[in-house]
Amino acid sequence: MSGALVHRVEASGPGDVSGLSELIARGTLPDSVRAVIGKTEGNGCVNDFSRDLASRAWSDALPKGAVTVMSGGTEGVLSPHFTLIAEHDSGSDSPSTLRVGVAVTDPIAPDELGRRAQVDAVAAAVTRARHSADVDLHQVHFVLVKCPLLTSEAINATHRRGASVVCTGTYESMAHSRGAASLGVALALEEIADDVIQAALDGTVEAWSSVASASAGVEVRSCHVVLLGNAREHQRGQRICSTVMRDAVDAASVQRLLDKIAADGGQVVQVFAKAEADQTGTIRGRRHTMLTDSDVASTRHARAAVGGLLSGLTGDTALYVSGGAEHQGPAGGGPVAIVWEAGNGSDA
Amino acid sequence: MSGALVHRVEASGPGDVSGLSELIARGTLPDSVRAVIGKTEGNGCVNDFSRDLASRAWSDALPKGAVTVMSGGTEGVLSPHFTLIAEHDSGSDSPSTLRVGVAVTDPIAPDELGRRAQVDAVAAAVTRARHSADVDLHQVHFVLVKCPLLTSEAINATHRRGASVVCTGTYESMAHSRGAASLGVALALEEIADDVIQAALDGTVEAWSSVASASAGVEVRSCHVVLLGNAREHQRGQRICSTVMRDAVDAASVQRLLDKIAADGGQVVQVFAKAEADQTGTIRGRRHTMLTDSDVASTRHARAAVGGLLSGLTGDTALYVSGGAEHQGPAGGGPVAIVWEAGNGSDA
Amino acid sequence: MSGALVHRVEASGPGDVSGLSELIARGTLPDSVRAVIGKTEGNGCVNDFSRDLASRAWSDALPKGAVTVMSGGTEGVLSPHFTLIAEHDSGSDSPSTLRVGVAVTDPIAPDELGRRAQVDAVAAAVTRARHSADVDLHQVHFVLVKCPLLTSEAINATHRRGASVVCTGTYESMAHSRGAASLGVALALEEIADDVIQAALDGTVEAWSSVASASAGVEVRSCHVVLLGNAREHQRGQRICSTVMRDAVDAASVQRLLDKIAADGGQVVQVFAKAEADQTGTIRGRRHTMLTDSDVASTRHARAAVGGLLSGLTGDTALYVSGGAEHQGPAGGGPVAIVWEAGNGSDA
Amino acid sequence: MSGALVHRVEASGPGDVSGLSELIARGTLPDSVRAVIGKTEGNGCVNDFSRDLASRAWSDALPKGAVTVMSGGTEGVLSPHFTLIAEHDSGSDSPSTLRVGVAVTDPIAPDELGRRAQVDAVAAAVTRARHSADVDLHQVHFVLVKCPLLTSEAINATHRRGASVVCTGTYESMAHSRGAASLGVALALEEIADDVIQAALDGTVEAWSSVASASAGVEVRSCHVVLLGNAREHQRGQRICSTVMRDAVDAASVQRLLDKIAADGGQVVQVFAKAEADQTGTIRGRRHTMLTDSDVASTRHARAAVGGLLSGLTGDTALYVSGGAEHQGPAGGGPVAIVWEAGNGSDA
Repeated sequence: MSGALVHRVEASGPGDVSGLSELIARGTLPDSVRAVIGKTEGNGCVNDFSRDLASRAWSDALPKGAVTVMSGGTEGVLSPHFTLIAEHDSGSDSPSTLRVGVAVTDPIAPDELGRRAQVDAVAAAVTRARHSADVDLHQVHFVLVKCPLLTSEAINATHRRGASVVCTGTYESMAHSRGAASLGVALALEEIADDVIQAALDGTVEAWSSVASASAGVEVRSCHVVLLGNAREHQRGQRICSTVMRDAVDAASVQRLLDKIAADGGQVVQVFAKAEADQTGTIRGRRHTMLTDSDVASTRHARAAVGGLLSGLTGDTALYVSGGAEHQGPAGGGPVAIVWEAGNGSDA
Repeated sequence: MSGALVHRVEASGPGDVSGLSELIARGTLPDSVRAVIGKTEGNGCVNDFSRDLASRAWSDALPKGAVTVMSGGTEGVLSPHFTLIAEHDSGSDSPSTLRVGVAVTDPIAPDELGRRAQVDAVAAAVTRARHSADVDLHQVHFVLVKCPLLTSEAINATHRRGASVVCTGTYESMAHSRGAASLGVALALEEIADDVIQAALDGTVEAWSSVASASAGVEVRSCHVVLLGNAREHQRGQRICSTVMRDAVDAASVQRLLDKIAADGGQVVQVFAKAEADQTGTIRGRRHTMLTDSDVASTRHARAAVGGLLSGLTGDTALYVSGGAEHQGPAGGGPVAIVWEAGNGSDA
Repeated sequence: MSGALVHRVEASGPGDVSGLSELIARGTLPDSVRAVIGKTEGNGCVNDFSRDLASRAWSDALPKGAVTVMSGGTEGVLSPHFTLIAEHDSGSDSPSTLRVGVAVTDPIAPDELGRRAQVDAVAAAVTRARHSADVDLHQVHFVLVKCPLLTSEAINATHRRGASVVCTGTYESMAHSRGAASLGVALALEEIADDVIQAALDGTVEAWSSVASASAGVEVRSCHVVLLGNAREHQRGQRICSTVMRDAVDAASVQRLLDKIAADGGQVVQVFAKAEADQTGTIRGRRHTMLTDSDVASTRHARAAVGGLLSGLTGDTALYVSGGAEHQGPAGGGPVAIVWEAGNGSDA
Repeated sequence: MSGALVHRVEASGPGDVSGLSELIARGTLPDSVRAVIGKTEGNGCVNDFSRDLASRAWSDALPKGAVTVMSGGTEGVLSPHFTLIAEHDSGSDSPSTLRVGVAVTDPIAPDELGRRAQVDAVAAAVTRARHSADVDLHQVHFVLVKCPLLTSEAINATHRRGASVVCTGTYESMAHSRGAASLGVALALEEIADDVIQAALDGTVEAWSSVASASAGVEVRSCHVVLLGNAREHQRGQRICSTVMRDAVDAASVQRLLDKIAADGGQVVQVFAKAEADQTGTIRGRRHTMLTDSDVASTRHARAAVGGLLSGLTGDTALYVSGGAEHQGPAGGGPVAIVWEAGNGSDA
């Protein structure tokens, strides 16, 4: 079987692919790389060109077939970096429990974005990725989706041909795209039933995935899916676990995972988290100002705050914290997945 | 003797003084209020008018003599609020160990700002405040200073009369003012020697206070000082303790204080912390992007991150986290003070 | 009859009311002031506290009854200032052709904002203001409306009582409020028919006023209306004229007005203009980026650009340029009104 | 002789090089392209990755040797675009009067940036470019320089090896780099004497070039120079003229050039302008707020305002307006160059 290995490399800038040499030096071949997950230093919003720059640089550097997911925004203490996920086909001697699967949807048309068509496209891709990873439903701990957004041009073109779009704001469209993608994950993983999808899209029913992480960007037309889970066989090397923060200050949930890893003598390899501004304008009953700050987007605020918390808990700042958690964990909170490496004594 | 009591009230906006009624309802008279410390929701930078708005509203609402210190910036999860500090003159029956002292300097001239003259003015005010609080040197845990900044008008006027200013950037002047104020605190509390002051101002020697917290704003011409410490007598009611975060992700230092308070059966009343972007551009060896983000000021990033961490550790978002920690704690870190209330059994 | 006089005073900050002394020195009594129209230096968006600060300061400084309209945003070359409009009751010896009328609506409930109820409330107020100014329909050249926005608190409270709001974004609500207010102006001035209002609100019909100027802010609950027009009698002193910019670079329309004023030997007293980002994402067929900039709100961009143009054309930077021109002039453009003072020889 | 032709192409994004096909369709060979001058849609400040993205895309698309100068910032009405400058070697049958010369300096070390060494390096490159263009000193109307900035990494590395940098702020370093580059232009074109250079760098003497346009960015280590001027021979086709705006609202200077071109029956091909916030904080005696806005960089404000003015005067929004005019035109103003095409009857 094919075990997956997560490598994390620093970045001196969005176009810095020097981490690949580092990877090769560690003995990982470029053509085993299945996915590059970047945390680049743009604003993470509509006009974030750091994502496009990183996508181009890595696409040039890697063999065809590797999926790139670039998520902008390293607010506060967060450090720009790339997470490379490679697959090692090594017979029965798999180096790790961790499994990876990737898939790409067809392009999402502007009038499909944020709607049922996008949900279904993502759900199908997630199922393909899960099968290729050979991971059971309940062993999936992280599904990353990079999804498109609506540009002014796309909105106008759609209107001209008499079709409609889910919303007319470009920044707002990012939320709709993330939401539909995440419902697609939840549907594929049987976290929600098919018949609540439309109500969830309409905002009348709360429905969410506990492992989805969606990021929107102008640099993709399709949805890119990267799925991580654990193999069903005996445990060795890297593996993954997950939880859900119930709100943006829910340190306890994450601390429990960290305590468990520490108890097993393990080391954290990478943390993947989602953050969002609670849409009620409050956290634990107290007012926050993320939604009324017209100078800084709420996703930037949320990444900075949750990034600060997780960096403090782990002592590490090169974490993947992504903003905008629509249908990703409960309202105001978000999923957290941790890839960790067991100590020598803990393989079994 | 006069014990001090810290009350924290929520704010629906910078001009919301309804918390005063709440205070009165709890039995605290307005004329016992010595200081109002606001965390208002502006950008915390030069053009933050939320501070001025709050200052005016509270100055109108309170009897003359109460010092107002308004600090802008509630990025991320932080919740706008006001901390009111009242003094209860109750003979030997002081309700708490906590002591407060306030003082105001003469106006700081533009050519004095960020220089030795400001250091000395603040040092003298701190000493006056400490004596009025009747607190020993080593029992001072928090000295808050609100200090002025340089406006374009002030810079031009100073140049016209042939004098010089410490810098010509308005945002930059906030850092110089905070730095000089903090060195004044350190000097008054004998944390540093007189002969390192100039070198510290020049940036050639690292020197800092472990209890200073300075905030600059266009709404003041003088420096306003609020000092908190513990009485030397036996312990009761509210009291204060402090530590220093060595960098922006130093959760451990704060956790130790919180653990100690919890061990004593105490409840946190308020946390006062400073945050800043490490000027080396790195935290624990990894690059951060706070200093190269031309869209969002580094002080905003720092407040969001440290605010996220402290809110996670305490479960509370109405904390006082202030940005820009020049000479306040070690480079990249900052002082943290916690006012807490002992449980019933812990008075001694 | 009562002629109106427009005085413009500089502001050293949002709370600077020293212009009142200047006014008194020129012989205008404070109690003749009908309106204060401020261009303050906040971001002009949801969290612009410069407006509130200015409103409070002027409300304190003036007798009751004067209407305050504070519009935030002095991007680019624009200079913060206040425009004071006083009324001189001087029998047949009216000092000017200019007339002013003011009116205030009842508070607009959150579920009325951006909807027909707001349109009607504003229309009624405009009619009251016009009658008090004694100006004919076709002699109205400028109707300024300060209108409320939706806060997170108001949105939540409305949802809790089972009612709906026009949108759930606070920044977005500013556009809805400006739009409904402007349709109210157009309705009252018979620029549009009653039966297109709903379609205009729904965005399916283009409908606009050529003299409306609406500005939203958190500092008001009601709509404040200030109307300027010319008396029907012979021409003297200050008067007003207007045009419509068909897009944000339509210098020609404004230049024609300026040329006409110059030909009459007149002097510009004040310019009132609206600016907006064309919602198609293009201007004269070329792409603009105001709608895809997630760092700076499109209203800020629009004010900066149109302010730069008008300041260049007039050589004056203390102009009133307000952002967000929904139903105010054609899409992408906006109304421009100019108060000017005739030279000695031009009275007739 | 070799005449130069300026082509302007629209851009759907920073990485859009489709304009090259358009160029080829017009009969211009890619290997005749000497320079690509981009106006990309980032913030134009330190973390503007749109410049890097555009540089990479055009460097990949064009033969080696073409110089790329990418300037970020299309605030307000400005439209992102690329200006391609090709050279046609066509013997005596030169298609135009316009001439182009390009040159690149050696990398500027961090401790040279903003200092005499950078001035001299740029001056030498300007002279090389002028000679290759074969243009007389007084016939140079535009010298564009793309120059590096200081990153946090460079500042730290320089300090570690015991050397100093001109300033420690990354955004601030952009101004120093632009200033030194512009003094290099002024020196090479004999606009200023050698012995005022140091005083000009120190800010004690005002000295400026009337044709320099400098733009700083993280995407270059060297200075890239593009020089445009007119041939001394008879006039045909495209040519260039220039003026200096004395402040940011000086429409008259530009209008005079436009009137002259119109009088000659010419058509504007492209406008190159510089914009800056007057460092006194005032324009024509009135306060502006560009230097005290901590949310939006002053260069962004200045581009938006001057871009609005020039777009209004020309009716065109795809103009090159660059921010930060240190030593480029008088304080608060900046040089403006216009490439225009004569009508048929005007060749002589």
